[in-house]
Amino acid sequence: MTVSKMAQNLIGSEIIKVAGEVNSMIARGEQICNLTIGDFDPSIYPIPQELKEGITQAYNEGHTNYPPANGVAELRKSVAAFTEDKLGLKYPENDILVAGGSRPLIYATYLALVDPGDKVVFPTPSWNNNHYCHLSGATPVMVETRAENNFMPTAADIAPHLKGATMLALCSPLNPTGTMFSKKDLQEICDLVVEENNSRSEGEKPLYILYDHIYWMLTFGTEHEHFDPVNLRHELRDYVVYIDGISKSFAATGVRVGYAYGPAIVMDKMKAILGHVGAWAPKAEQIATARYLKQPELVYSFMHELKHRLQRSLEVLYKGFKELKEAGFAVDAIEPMGAIYLSVKMDLAGKTTPAGDLLQTSKDITFYILSEAKLAVVPFSAFGSAPDLNWFRLSVGGASLEEIENSLGRLRSALEKLK
Amino acid sequence: MTVSKMAQNLIGSEIIKVAGEVNSMIARGEQICNLTIGDFDPSIYPIPQELKEGITQAYNEGHTNYPPANGVAELRKSVAAFTEDKLGLKYPENDILVAGGSRPLIYATYLALVDPGDKVVFPTPSWNNNHYCHLSGATPVMVETRAENNFMPTAADIAPHLKGATMLALCSPLNPTGTMFSKKDLQEICDLVVEENNSRSEGEKPLYILYDHIYWMLTFGTEHEHFDPVNLRHELRDYVVYIDGISKSFAATGVRVGYAYGPAIVMDKMKAILGHVGAWAPKAEQIATARYLKQPELVYSFMHELKHRLQRSLEVLYKGFKELKEAGFAVDAIEPMGAIYLSVKMDLAGKTTPAGDLLQTSKDITFYILSEAKLAVVPFSAFGSAPDLNWFRLSVGGASLEEIENSLGRLRSALEKLK
Repeated sequence: MTVSKMAQNLIGSEIIKVAGEVNSMIARGEQICNLTIGDFDPSIYPIPQELKEGITQAYNEGHTNYPPANGVAELRKSVAAFTEDKLGLKYPENDILVAGGSRPLIYATYLALVDPGDKVVFPTPSWNNNHYCHLSGATPVMVETRAENNFMPTAADIAPHLKGATMLALCSPLNPTGTMFSKKDLQEICDLVVEENNSRSEGEKPLYILYDHIYWMLTFGTEHEHFDPVNLRHELRDYVVYIDGISKSFAATGVRVGYAYGPAIVMDKMKAILGHVGAWAPKAEQIATARYLKQPELVYSFMHELKHRLQRSLEVLYKGFKELKEAGFAVDAIEPMGAIYLSVKMDLAGKTTPAGDLLQTSKDITFYILSEAKLAVVPFSAFGSAPDLNWFRLSVGGASLEEIENSLGRLRSALEKLK
Repeated sequence: MTVSKMAQNLIGSEIIKVAGEVNSMIARGEQICNLTIGDFDPSIYPIPQELKEGITQAYNEGHTNYPPANGVAELRKSVAAFTEDKLGLKYPENDILVAGGSRPLIYATYLALVDPGDKVVFPTPSWNNNHYCHLSGATPVMVETRAENNFMPTAADIAPHLKGATMLALCSPLNPTGTMFSKKDLQEICDLVVEENNSRSEGEKPLYILYDHIYWMLTFGTEHEHFDPVNLRHELRDYVVYIDGISKSFAATGVRVGYAYGPAIVMDKMKAILGHVGAWAPKAEQIATARYLKQPELVYSFMHELKHRLQRSLEVLYKGFKELKEAGFAVDAIEPMGAIYLSVKMDLAGKTTPAGDLLQTSKDITFYILSEAKLAVVPFSAFGSAPDLNWFRLSVGGASLEEIENSLGRLRSALEKLK
């Protein structure tokens, strides 16, 4: 034993393991359609021009010293106005907390609310909640969702697990599935939380909702509307921490600006925790983001274009999988609703590769598709689903439409080669 | 109980409390010489011009997506070369970990090494180790240092506390004192650590040193040489985590680029932890720092100028306090050696203010000096020292030389008014 027990038992990100294999193939000169990482290729999806120029301007104005621990006031004001305007969520600037990306805010929510041994309930597939449970010492309660419900949880799925739990971690639009809560499902889940909190005694810690809606700006079509707990049930206001930021909506994962909003008592604790952790957003980027968010017409036109292009890539993949299904292959896909992801099924367990290998787990399938079709995807097992659930996340931000189109023919050939 | 126990029992930064009072006085229109925060006023101390231009260039080149979890390779290579060249410390790029400032790296060192209940030994006054102990559940063992040893610990101070400890947290040049380890003191402490580790059995966790030398570039004169554990005792290499970065040396606290180096097994765990925490440095800033560090003549000339100016401010304060001492006032100061801080004594407990208030604690003295002399300082009690230790940190990065010069006359008047 050379390190702490927590560190000893850390599980590395499974997504990064697949990405490592992809990178070594690319280093060997192979052409891979890389749909693994929830990121953007800047040559295909640059950040907004005005945001970029704003960062340079902020540096030229000398914004190089420490930002306030909760973020520069101008940004918190901008976020407050933007969030009220676009989402109808009204939080004063002091209940908004800025950090260097959204991850630190999720982490801080866990630390601020969860005592070691506390139950944290989350549906699977889910992005990283298992890791946050490990880091905070929480007892994870993973609730499996089903393809027929777009891998979103229903109240019936969640209901048996809320008694005594400290937190329910939800995400919509959902990473890894690209699907979203229906109004009815989210409403019913919110009612369960209200009911559970009403049943608790005075001194008992309440049940909180961690609501990660970092992808709320990225929804497709008018039929896929974004919903959130407090708008649906106002009485939940003291119990919801919202995770938000610019990383995904503005294709700005490397710019490191995230923000959260929620009840003052929780946000204050998160601020103190993140102050010590030091996970602050760079100051010039905070100033630039503040100014960019104040120009709704620029934000709108950027979002419109970004969504249009992401949706086109997702639709090409979706149609491609549906055509393969119609052609008799054991694949399927769920209509893309939001975020930058597509859920696809490749039900290839039990089949044998040309090399004579039997495909068993979703990991086997991942590596067969990678080597044979040069198509890199992440199995839902990397997001806490069972290893034999043969569904996969396809993330389109890192590949051009042409690369995506070309991958479908290779996938078909790879499927044809299986016996 | 509405939040976790850890959050409930968090202590806010005492420095920020003083800063809050200062800010409200400034808001009321008062002219304050603010020597509280370990930061730089960018209008007085801007970041290097080439670093700033490099950030704009990196943004224009499209470095806006996720950096690798351990930092961009170009930066890790630059840091490796710079650290070997300037410090004689040879770490491969894979044992270097980049984060969004140095705080996340200190935090990650704690989480990677310390199990709840483990002993962490650190001298006081000390910057924030008490908070990191709270966050990690460590049992803090605070070792009081003395003015006659420049508030640096000696081997004799440390020796009684190392048995069974997991970590010894050291810092030189030291925040808050502006003093440094002598070669002899650090060597003797290193020998204690070697001895302690030799005495441990195979399965036992070793004793590590967290060595925060973020201020190593900021030392004054040839007589104040910077020393570090591994250069003094090579056999400590597997047990030292170094904390470093650009925040202080390049007056770049808001740019959020820090780095650490140490044994591979520990750095790998810290990388995994910080990957989940998400405390990454912004990518464009990483690229720009990588390129800047490769130009030693630029770094040298910037550092030369920065040090010269900081030293001048520190010397003016130092001489001012020595003159007041000679004039019979109960004050003193320690020669500035490194960092951006001066240690001063204002032994005013027991004196009565013109308003008839008896000064008792160092906090009383702080607020008297603030209101009467318009001089804002931080008592060592904010850094874990006893509340009746009447020594204070003066931080010069946020004030001009003129402001500092003018404050001394006001201080003299304030001292004269005491009975």
